[in-house]
Amino acid sequence: MKKIIKTVGVFGKYRDDSISGHIVRLTKFLQERKLSVQIDEATADRIGQPFGPGQSRAAICREIDLAIIVGGDGTLLNVARDLAACNVPIIGVNLGRLGFLTDIQAEHMTEEIRKILDGDYQTEKRLLLQAEVMRKGKIVRTANAFNDVAVGKGELARMIEFETFIGGEFVNATRGDGIIVASPTGSTAYALSAGGPILHPSLPAIVIVPICPHTLSNRPIVVGAESIIEIVITGAVNQRAHVTFDGQATYSLEDHDRIYVRRSEHDVELIHPSRRSHFEVLRIKLGWGESY
Amino acid sequence: MKKIIKTVGVFGKYRDDSISGHIVRLTKFLQERKLSVQIDEATADRIGQPFGPGQSRAAICREIDLAIIVGGDGTLLNVARDLAACNVPIIGVNLGRLGFLTDIQAEHMTEEIRKILDGDYQTEKRLLLQAEVMRKGKIVRTANAFNDVAVGKGELARMIEFETFIGGEFVNATRGDGIIVASPTGSTAYALSAGGPILHPSLPAIVIVPICPHTLSNRPIVVGAESIIEIVITGAVNQRAHVTFDGQATYSLEDHDRIYVRRSEHDVELIHPSRRSHFEVLRIKLGWGESY
Amino acid sequence: MKKIIKTVGVFGKYRDDSISGHIVRLTKFLQERKLSVQIDEATADRIGQPFGPGQSRAAICREIDLAIIVGGDGTLLNVARDLAACNVPIIGVNLGRLGFLTDIQAEHMTEEIRKILDGDYQTEKRLLLQAEVMRKGKIVRTANAFNDVAVGKGELARMIEFETFIGGEFVNATRGDGIIVASPTGSTAYALSAGGPILHPSLPAIVIVPICPHTLSNRPIVVGAESIIEIVITGAVNQRAHVTFDGQATYSLEDHDRIYVRRSEHDVELIHPSRRSHFEVLRIKLGWGESY
Amino acid sequence: MKKIIKTVGVFGKYRDDSISGHIVRLTKFLQERKLSVQIDEATADRIGQPFGPGQSRAAICREIDLAIIVGGDGTLLNVARDLAACNVPIIGVNLGRLGFLTDIQAEHMTEEIRKILDGDYQTEKRLLLQAEVMRKGKIVRTANAFNDVAVGKGELARMIEFETFIGGEFVNATRGDGIIVASPTGSTAYALSAGGPILHPSLPAIVIVPICPHTLSNRPIVVGAESIIEIVITGAVNQRAHVTFDGQATYSLEDHDRIYVRRSEHDVELIHPSRRSHFEVLRIKLGWGESY
Repeated sequence: MKKIIKTVGVFGKYRDDSISGHIVRLTKFLQERKLSVQIDEATADRIGQPFGPGQSRAAICREIDLAIIVGGDGTLLNVARDLAACNVPIIGVNLGRLGFLTDIQAEHMTEEIRKILDGDYQTEKRLLLQAEVMRKGKIVRTANAFNDVAVGKGELARMIEFETFIGGEFVNATRGDGIIVASPTGSTAYALSAGGPILHPSLPAIVIVPICPHTLSNRPIVVGAESIIEIVITGAVNQRAHVTFDGQATYSLEDHDRIYVRRSEHDVELIHPSRRSHFEVLRIKLGWGESY
Repeated sequence: MKKIIKTVGVFGKYRDDSISGHIVRLTKFLQERKLSVQIDEATADRIGQPFGPGQSRAAICREIDLAIIVGGDGTLLNVARDLAACNVPIIGVNLGRLGFLTDIQAEHMTEEIRKILDGDYQTEKRLLLQAEVMRKGKIVRTANAFNDVAVGKGELARMIEFETFIGGEFVNATRGDGIIVASPTGSTAYALSAGGPILHPSLPAIVIVPICPHTLSNRPIVVGAESIIEIVITGAVNQRAHVTFDGQATYSLEDHDRIYVRRSEHDVELIHPSRRSHFEVLRIKLGWGESY
Repeated sequence: MKKIIKTVGVFGKYRDDSISGHIVRLTKFLQERKLSVQIDEATADRIGQPFGPGQSRAAICREIDLAIIVGGDGTLLNVARDLAACNVPIIGVNLGRLGFLTDIQAEHMTEEIRKILDGDYQTEKRLLLQAEVMRKGKIVRTANAFNDVAVGKGELARMIEFETFIGGEFVNATRGDGIIVASPTGSTAYALSAGGPILHPSLPAIVIVPICPHTLSNRPIVVGAESIIEIVITGAVNQRAHVTFDGQATYSLEDHDRIYVRRSEHDVELIHPSRRSHFEVLRIKLGWGESY
Repeated sequence: MKKIIKTVGVFGKYRDDSISGHIVRLTKFLQERKLSVQIDEATADRIGQPFGPGQSRAAICREIDLAIIVGGDGTLLNVARDLAACNVPIIGVNLGRLGFLTDIQAEHMTEEIRKILDGDYQTEKRLLLQAEVMRKGKIVRTANAFNDVAVGKGELARMIEFETFIGGEFVNATRGDGIIVASPTGSTAYALSAGGPILHPSLPAIVIVPICPHTLSNRPIVVGAESIIEIVITGAVNQRAHVTFDGQATYSLEDHDRIYVRRSEHDVELIHPSRRSHFEVLRIKLGWGESY
């Protein structure tokens, strides 16, 4: 995070009216600190007065020194992908339950953000994934993913067949519900439900987790973040498959499509309250205190 | 199986020309034994001469004393559901790899079937599942399933939310990719890929396996076959979900739909060569001989 | 449970002084209801006055119509094994956290037991396991287990090798940390930690769960409760292995030992408050309400 | 590996007479290439003539430029730990099945080693673990581990309780059979059986895998290789626990003992035939070609 913050972008949860009060309060607080505030277009539209039309993310991106997200992990994932290219540090405020990423509770929002702006914070760089879908030799879709790139079967499919390559080297051919390529951040999301391990957020690694694989000895594989992971939809059958990015954007796949996943050249910079412990968040979120 | 077999139904793998020779050979063999042969409509259409137009399954069903399936486990599942109401015993011939259900190899087909017709066989009753989808108080779909009834997320969904009841008693609310309700037969199919246990085929039980559940302590539950399992698609979000039967038939679900799964009043009767061992099939299919 | 209860056995947690007040209070309550009370020897010794020397379990067993256990699931398992042959129904009182088996909290003890004695209760039969260790053709150890019979590696062993048979039929040869044979009751104990499914307590079934098996496709197997499960310690190496019963009693094994596990001819009868829901207990104990 | 190899150490499988012919053949081959050969003491003792008394590993270690192990992965683990401090590159020859580490088959031994000595090879650095057991403020045991450091329950224990810290930060308190701290090399050994992920051998990371944890949401955690992992045996009960190194050396633990695991300052250098593919080894060893 820059030493001197002049302009702050404010982003609210998508289509959620309950954020209105928080956004007004946050904006007022920031303006009292003589900071220039820019409101995300969708958020401004939702709230209406006193916020004008807001600005597109592409426009905001280049002007702000800091982004504050008021919503949940889903909102933060969404904004983080869009701001990645501008290297804007992000603070996440959750409206309800503690998030893995949004670790400031709305009721302590201004208090916590005051401390951060006063210099009492910790900063954390997290790797971002970048994906490309190649069809007949051409890139037909590119996308960022902060959590994961998931290849899954279509609605009517019983399973899909695909091959996995790491660094160009053949790993295996799998049949199953699909496969997840996750960042350390995403290792506590969908990949965890599918049986993947937890990667420490600071580890420069990517985890590849098969979803309901037909070969019972298929296991999650953890590789270095410099690896290029390639998933090839094999053409044995006329498959219906699709790829999703952070579970938020999706793209339909065809036989022989190749999905390349690698680390983005951009990282996401998260700003946390200084006393925050990653393992404490895990203990709370995963209920590690409790045994049966 | 009846003491005296007079009429045999023959069913080939769907849309597979390679079965032609096997069907001709099998039919000739049966006719030489003075058995009346009825050919499945789709199979007869595929093969053409010398087989006439074939007969619908509904028609065949009431006339045959025995069904012989030439294909794989998928073909057998398909035919077994259609013949269930007529209580026709089934012999499964696999064209390639050993199946869990189709345990006679095509190259030994006539030899093995001769032994069976001569009385050298074992018979096994397997339970069948029956499902109903209820929407706004009305049954909108009913179906049989020999392996499993699977409720899954639609193509664009990140996850679905649903509640499970057993015998009318609330079990839990789950978010995830879906849930599988499987018979003992289905316990070595999709349910196994999703982390379920293997149920012995003779056990009168049903297993309920969550698919990539968000609550990490959710585990497969095994209940008595007399239980009625109810999955309710909760309406928190406008979900896209669907239910599939044996992975072969599918039906789109809406919020608040209720899927009831129970044991069918009909069983499936499988006829095996007399020396067949269920655990030997498991050892071969699951590679239990091999450790890393 | 018998219609008329005359004599009640009281059993406290082993070597725990904190039970003293509860035992005194419970005994007084029972005596006020004109019931004859017999105190377990170990409990009486621990508490001292006003309780005499207490009685051995073998003696108590034949005289009581009902057993009340004050402790936790571990205490109940221990007493249930000893009382099994006398078919004494059991009420479980937990001193702290809700147990799977001890579902009455100590602070509501007299109130809940009053209701039960007044006829407001539900009764549940649970199957018990019986194990025999055979060495060189002779039975060298027999034991009951309410939860599980676990064969495990000794302290210095890296792994053990063994073969499993069900109903005399060979299942597989496994290398690993060991294997658990669990009742439905035990399916929520050690077997669950090792990756086993949850069996409904009313299901007449037994689950066999390998512990850290070397063959990755080895999975839990659920079989009918009438099955005889046989674990053979193979003699490839000079192994150090042992078998434990409910994790409370243990016996050292030698190469070629055979452990037979089957359903006991006796069941355990648990008495619960009438409004108790098994799935509610699971939801609380396993934290099913919570997702990350 | 050094450009010029002058002296080669030869190590055979422990207490296995079948290696004799291979060792004789290998030694002759090396001597014909004008290489000086040093035989491991235990191997020389086992084989007898024409090999003299052999040399201790401590002595050999400083004199050899290359170590050739004839045995299996277990033998290589054992030798690698002892030679680590001398930075001797290692070639592994397996006597039977392909190993993860010993990837030259005995029947092609001289042919493959000839190629390697002629310069046709690939070299791979693998991280080694180092463990210390601290008791009452003093280090009571130190050991290397190439695969894993495993803390496990003693023979009579039902489970053990321990706390895990990473980099001095509290992670969680666990009850269960134990915990495995594994290198990438060890990720395909015991850790895999316990449900851990596969780490690519080149990844500078360590994986921490709980064994049958009582808290169902406990999952494997992957951290950077620079992390110090600390396991504390908590003193709630008088526990019987022990720690093993590569499953080959063991040490009894007491309540309050602390086990520190970190990356050793030494790596292990493995020499492979040049065409060797790590994923091909995984496919063969884990049966990835096969689905059920």
